[in-house]
Amino acid sequence: MPTTLRLFVSADLSAGSVLVLDDEQSNYLLRVLRLGVGGEVRLFNGRDGEWDTAITSVTGKRATVSPVSQRRPQPAPTSPAMTLLFAPVKKDETDLIVEKATELGAVSICPVLTQRTQTRTVRLDRFNKIALEAAEQTERLDLPAITDLAGLDQALDVLTPGTAVIFCDEAGDEAGAPWGGDTGRAGPARAVLEGLRGRNAAILIGPEGGFTPEERAFLRARPDTFAVSLGPRILRAETAAISAMTLWQAVCGDWG
Amino acid sequence: MPTTLRLFVSADLSAGSVLVLDDEQSNYLLRVLRLGVGGEVRLFNGRDGEWDTAITSVTGKRATVSPVSQRRPQPAPTSPAMTLLFAPVKKDETDLIVEKATELGAVSICPVLTQRTQTRTVRLDRFNKIALEAAEQTERLDLPAITDLAGLDQALDVLTPGTAVIFCDEAGDEAGAPWGGDTGRAGPARAVLEGLRGRNAAILIGPEGGFTPEERAFLRARPDTFAVSLGPRILRAETAAISAMTLWQAVCGDWG
Repeated sequence: MPTTLRLFVSADLSAGSVLVLDDEQSNYLLRVLRLGVGGEVRLFNGRDGEWDTAITSVTGKRATVSPVSQRRPQPAPTSPAMTLLFAPVKKDETDLIVEKATELGAVSICPVLTQRTQTRTVRLDRFNKIALEAAEQTERLDLPAITDLAGLDQALDVLTPGTAVIFCDEAGDEAGAPWGGDTGRAGPARAVLEGLRGRNAAILIGPEGGFTPEERAFLRARPDTFAVSLGPRILRAETAAISAMTLWQAVCGDWG
Repeated sequence: MPTTLRLFVSADLSAGSVLVLDDEQSNYLLRVLRLGVGGEVRLFNGRDGEWDTAITSVTGKRATVSPVSQRRPQPAPTSPAMTLLFAPVKKDETDLIVEKATELGAVSICPVLTQRTQTRTVRLDRFNKIALEAAEQTERLDLPAITDLAGLDQALDVLTPGTAVIFCDEAGDEAGAPWGGDTGRAGPARAVLEGLRGRNAAILIGPEGGFTPEERAFLRARPDTFAVSLGPRILRAETAAISAMTLWQAVCGDWG
């Protein structure tokens, strides 16, 4: 059994229960992978851990499967937790951000509407499908919660109190802006993150055009908000998101 | 002048020199951006720093420009330097790796042919174009050197002596494999990198199917080779590349 054969289902999973897979998953197992009765697949649902499961019957186009044994129990919710707040960019790059946030263990993915965000609508069904497929590939046992597009202030308001907001402003840190305390500049991401171990974090990535002066003033006045720098080269939005999430996992998360 | 209007040219740049831009760059300035005589653009060539330049005449479809003043001198070559060795994957993901390696400051990008590499040819012209556009956007003043597809052993042989090879094996570290010395496992990337500060580094990313036992034995026997882990989730090849380059820059490179 290839180790990547792993599907997310919404039904409960327990030994001996019986599930009829939907058309798409059945098609994948029966037609694409050419499995039949006895074929093996791992299932997870975000609640009951991961189960080794076998196809018990095929009726028409649909496969019926039954969990045999639990392979991994459901882990406790990640703590501290990392949320990604991002301004949607172009379609391909936005899709990439959702996929990579799932791979990199974000527990919530929150598109935010900033003043310079060009994209004013998001396709939640599309985002959820991308996240589901990424979770299947990446061996996660849960799915990230994906919220609908919300204003920046609303998105920040609903964070768990005390969450450290890690603000990546790739559009450039204006000289003299009072980020990062005395230095007048954003601090290197790794050094700032080392001071935030043990705290829930929300990584905030702006649109290609950056934040407006009003938004910067709003963020500056906000407690628990930390501006970070991601090096001397200007990163595109999706790269900044992936790099910031990577550094958070390596310094504060479960990569240790 | 938008700060992103930045073009790479191959000609020498000095005050008062005269350059005729090629059709593609002329079209971009004259038709897409609708600039005319007096229009401003920044130029770099990887040798002479970055120059503020103005359009001095338009002949037919082509713009002639003349450097006015040097905006930034050419920096010294990056030291320590980071090279990316990667097994080509699918087209979109391979393109993404080349683009992100450029954004993340790799000085060389080297596609390598491993035993499980599915893609046996690469388009160097395409890679160079992607890297050029990424360098223009990311404010780099040089371009990465991109080498043709080479066998893994050949690619390792031509590294500067003493280069630390950072081996990311997302396909899974077999239990008991003698990576990372006593522990029998790859070490967390950040901790391993902290021991490699000041050294040139080559980050090695395998194909989706991972390395073969023979390749692992070859790497294991090689001096200056360090296996690293990128957390408990299985990352896709392009994600592993971006994350490993990010961590190298944050720990050993110029993000400090």
